[in-house]
Amino acid sequence: MSSTGKPLLGAIEAGGTKFVLAVGHSPAHIIARHEIPTRDPAATLAEANAWFEGHGAIGALGIGSFGPVDLDRSSPEWGRITNTPKPGWANCDLVGYFAERLGVPIGFDTDVNAAALAEYTYGAGKSAASLAYITVGTGIGGGLVLDGKGVHGAAHPEMGHILPRRHPDDRDFKGVCPHHGDCLEGLASGPAIKARWGASLSELPADHEAHEIIACYLAQLAVSLIAVTSVEIIVFGGGVMKTPALLERVEQLASELGAAYFPGKAKHKIVSPGLGQNAGLTGSLLLAADL
Amino acid sequence: MSSTGKPLLGAIEAGGTKFVLAVGHSPAHIIARHEIPTRDPAATLAEANAWFEGHGAIGALGIGSFGPVDLDRSSPEWGRITNTPKPGWANCDLVGYFAERLGVPIGFDTDVNAAALAEYTYGAGKSAASLAYITVGTGIGGGLVLDGKGVHGAAHPEMGHILPRRHPDDRDFKGVCPHHGDCLEGLASGPAIKARWGASLSELPADHEAHEIIACYLAQLAVSLIAVTSVEIIVFGGGVMKTPALLERVEQLASELGAAYFPGKAKHKIVSPGLGQNAGLTGSLLLAADL
Repeated sequence: MSSTGKPLLGAIEAGGTKFVLAVGHSPAHIIARHEIPTRDPAATLAEANAWFEGHGAIGALGIGSFGPVDLDRSSPEWGRITNTPKPGWANCDLVGYFAERLGVPIGFDTDVNAAALAEYTYGAGKSAASLAYITVGTGIGGGLVLDGKGVHGAAHPEMGHILPRRHPDDRDFKGVCPHHGDCLEGLASGPAIKARWGASLSELPADHEAHEIIACYLAQLAVSLIAVTSVEIIVFGGGVMKTPALLERVEQLASELGAAYFPGKAKHKIVSPGLGQNAGLTGSLLLAADL
Repeated sequence: MSSTGKPLLGAIEAGGTKFVLAVGHSPAHIIARHEIPTRDPAATLAEANAWFEGHGAIGALGIGSFGPVDLDRSSPEWGRITNTPKPGWANCDLVGYFAERLGVPIGFDTDVNAAALAEYTYGAGKSAASLAYITVGTGIGGGLVLDGKGVHGAAHPEMGHILPRRHPDDRDFKGVCPHHGDCLEGLASGPAIKARWGASLSELPADHEAHEIIACYLAQLAVSLIAVTSVEIIVFGGGVMKTPALLERVEQLASELGAAYFPGKAKHKIVSPGLGQNAGLTGSLLLAADL
C-alpha cells in the first residue's frame, strides 16, 4: 500500500537479457527498482514474483515485453510471448503466470510500445500527438503511439525488419537477420556492426565509414515512419545510439533522403529519449495505471 | 431534405483530374452523383457549389481532397490544400469556400484517408481493426485507418514517397518524382511506367519485365506498412492496379520479401477495393456523417 492509501503499481520490463522490475505510486514516481538476469522462464518469473511479493500488495501490474507477443485480448493466447527463437521462451504465458500468483489486473504490450507510451506521456513527446520509439541494440525494434494509444494492428509493429536500400560502400555484407538477411536489423543492429567491423560503433574511429553507413540505414527507418504514418516525434534509443554524433547523422541523412519534403515537416523531430534508460519501465507502469 | 426527414449529406472527392460530387441519405446510400473536370479553383469550386445548391439544403459536407492538405483543426490553415505543385491550387481554402456558401459543418481529410475509412467501414476491411488504402495511378498515395480513425500524425501520410530497393533489372531509370527521383511514386506510378516503357502496364505483354519490376516496388510498400504499423488489410486501388494479375504479383512478392515473418500474419491481407471506384466518395460521405 502506498502512502497515499492507493495500492502501488507494479511493472516489469521483460527483456531478452534482463527483467527490470519496479513498484511505484504512479508511473512517474518509482519507489523501488530491481534487475534480474533473464534465464529460463521458470526461474526468471519465480524470482520476479518473489520480488513483488516482498513489496506487499500491488493493485495492478504492467508488463512491457520483448516479442513477438500476442496483444489480442480476444485471443486465447493473449499475454503470451509467441514464436521467439529465444530458447525456452516460445509460448511463455507471462500474463497468466502473474495473474494467477498476484491476483491483480495486468496490462500488457511490447517493450517498445511501452517505451513509446512513456516518452509520449512524460518524455520527448509530451507536447506531441504522435511518437515512435526505436531501440537500436542487440536487435532493432520500434513502438508507435498515435492519439495516445499504442499501435497494435494485426499484432504489433516489427520495424526492425524493413528493407532499406543498401549503402553503396556496403554492398557485400549479407546481413545477420536469420529471417531476412539484410533487413534493417540484419544491417544496423549491434551484432551486424560487430560482424562487419569486429567492434561496436562507439569503438570505431569517428572517421570510420561505419558511422555513415549505419546512420544511412537508420535514417531510412525515419523516412519510412514519416511517409507511412506522418509521426511527429521519432525517439532513437538503445545501446548503439550512445555512439557520439550518431543521432545527428541520422537526422541529417533523413533530411537529405527526402524527409524535408513531407507535409508537417516543422513538427517531425528525431531525438534522444527524454527518459533515458527508464522509458520501458515507466511505460510498463503506465500500462498498469491505465487499467 | 431526405425522405427520412433528416437533411442529406453532401460529399466531394476532390481530385487533380476531376471532382466527384454526391448527396446521400447516408454514406452507403448515394442518391445523386456528378463529376466535373478540375480546372482552376474559382471555376471548379463555383460549379461544385452550384450543383449542391441545385439539390436543396444539405446538413453537412465531407471533403476528401488531393494533397498535401492541412488537417490540423487548431491551425489557421485548416481545410486548405497547402503547397501542391498543381497550378493555382496552392493555398486553396476548400473548407472555407464551402463553409461560407453552404453554411454547414464540414469534415475534411485526404482523399486516400477518406477511401481508407470507407473500405474499413463498408468494404474490404469491414471485419478488420485496421486498414490501409493505396492508390496507384498518376501518383501513388495512401491512407491509413487504425482503430476506426484516419491517421494524421504531424500532417498526413505520404506513402508514395518511401524509398524502395531498386530492382536489379531496373537500375538505370532515374525516376520521375520531382522531389526524390526514384522514390516509389517516381518508379511505379503511371507516368513512371510510361517514361520507361512508352506504354501503360496494361498495354505491355503479360511476360514483359515491367510487371515484375512494378510489383516488386509496390510489394515493398506493403512490407513497410506491415513492419511499421502491423496493419491488417492493405487495399491496392487506382488505375495501374487494373493491370491483370498485378495484385497477385504484389501479394506473392510481399510474401517472398519477408512479410510472412511478421506476427499476426494470418490477418495481413493484400486485396482489391471492396467498393470499386466509390471508396473515395463514400469516405467523403462518412466524413460528413461523422460530424
